[in-house]
Amino acid sequence: MNPADFQSWAAARQTRIETLLDKVLPAPRLVPERLHAAMRYAVLGRGKRVRPLLAFAGGELSGADIERVALAGAAVELIHAYSLVHDDLPCMDDDVLRRGKPTVHVEYDEPTALLVGDALQSLAFQLLGEYRLTEHTDDQLQMVKLLAAASGSRGMAGGQAIDLESVGKKLSVPELELMHIHKTGALIRASALLGAHCGHGLADAELAQLDSFAKLIGLAFQVVDDVLDAESPTATLGKTAGKDAERDKPTYVSVLGVAESKAFAEQLRQDALRALDTFGTRALRLRELADFIVLRKF
Amino acid sequence: MNPADFQSWAAARQTRIETLLDKVLPAPRLVPERLHAAMRYAVLGRGKRVRPLLAFAGGELSGADIERVALAGAAVELIHAYSLVHDDLPCMDDDVLRRGKPTVHVEYDEPTALLVGDALQSLAFQLLGEYRLTEHTDDQLQMVKLLAAASGSRGMAGGQAIDLESVGKKLSVPELELMHIHKTGALIRASALLGAHCGHGLADAELAQLDSFAKLIGLAFQVVDDVLDAESPTATLGKTAGKDAERDKPTYVSVLGVAESKAFAEQLRQDALRALDTFGTRALRLRELADFIVLRKF
Repeated sequence: MNPADFQSWAAARQTRIETLLDKVLPAPRLVPERLHAAMRYAVLGRGKRVRPLLAFAGGELSGADIERVALAGAAVELIHAYSLVHDDLPCMDDDVLRRGKPTVHVEYDEPTALLVGDALQSLAFQLLGEYRLTEHTDDQLQMVKLLAAASGSRGMAGGQAIDLESVGKKLSVPELELMHIHKTGALIRASALLGAHCGHGLADAELAQLDSFAKLIGLAFQVVDDVLDAESPTATLGKTAGKDAERDKPTYVSVLGVAESKAFAEQLRQDALRALDTFGTRALRLRELADFIVLRKF
Repeated sequence: MNPADFQSWAAARQTRIETLLDKVLPAPRLVPERLHAAMRYAVLGRGKRVRPLLAFAGGELSGADIERVALAGAAVELIHAYSLVHDDLPCMDDDVLRRGKPTVHVEYDEPTALLVGDALQSLAFQLLGEYRLTEHTDDQLQMVKLLAAASGSRGMAGGQAIDLESVGKKLSVPELELMHIHKTGALIRASALLGAHCGHGLADAELAQLDSFAKLIGLAFQVVDDVLDAESPTATLGKTAGKDAERDKPTYVSVLGVAESKAFAEQLRQDALRALDTFGTRALRLRELADFIVLRKF
């Protein structure tokens, strides 16, 4: 592994996603102008674009065309961006800072933020309906189903609901895991799988290995998030730090402590890497992303 | 036209949609239970199911299989139901009554209502990805795009944004029309078109006629809604009456007055019926629906 090589791979793809998101988001001069400006504010800028990167890396397993994967990655990123806007609303986490900027309802207003999230979700599915992403359109309908299931009540939105119910409770590690497999994990798994679907079909056993990797790395992502939330200053994080503890939300840090959480993340990373053995060199970028996700400092 | 015949046609389809929605909504015993119970509360019950009826009637133009149209109709109804839940939120219309029952955020709580709407939108697209609705999957991807565009910032969500900006302003009739073509019209047009897409393809000229009908009837629907909001007691309406005037929202009644609004709705109905001439007897149900929409009392 060559860190400089990974960084240039990732940077090129982050730029490509940024350009594509800018293109597919409605222009701010289109009616309703304020909504479109707010949608762009919510999406464009300083995101790490971890989910699109996972889609690109998943696509390398199946020789997927990079333009097609970019569209799938953009769709996932729009879902992710909508979830952040809604999570930050006063009735949810009531947060004022996101990616170092005022949250959408602070910069605009609360009803606009609600509509921004709603419209970004629609736009994600519009991309999957509008552009050709696979050889066989049957496979593309599978992608629609996959992203919808990962976003809905048995996926990300369901994870948020479990999160709401957990405030003030003491959760066990399996209960925490259930929450995060929905809340963060579902979309991360969908990212890698959607990328792979854009290429030649993977065998079922290969898809299962990829899914297993993505599930482990999705969980690791959340464990690291909890550690960073507990340890980092707000300026580094780009969002308000220490809010979980303040809100009495159970986290890996509150359940396991910082040291054990870090060890758990490292264990997950190693298990995730093992799930990729079957792919050989095709999985180079997935391996590097696993390292990036677990070893990141923000 | 035979009113009893139309009523039995509509009643059979309303029952079918209700059964289907009950089946596709996650069971309340599935985690997260409270979210699933709230999603069912938001969708099942006393809706008029106008949009699915339009899908069924559109499907009769193209000989569509009724089970396929039901799924398309259910998808549109889920989008409609999500929009009502979000519209009723305190930061939007802050309404406490819907279809004669407490609104979702009153019966449950505000964050749950937010997630209910989010998850219902995902579920709508999941249906379009999961079930076979057309002979050619290419056409089904077109349906995904159509529903997404009708729901998003250039459709329904965009109409809500225009609505927000219009509070306290005096709008002209064309400005009102622009708002409603987005807010209500986009989804009503999508309903009829999605139904037609489930059968053998219509010619482009036929699709244009159907779209023209649906656009006119969507507008008529809104004009009638404004009249009913101004004239009906809350008990008949099933939602809080007179709220538009109270909120200083421009409506057809506030701009044109009641008598001229009624005449406008009747004009729209006649124009809409004329757009169906090309279809002959295949358009019987669409004609009856136009009458139902304009002449309804609730």
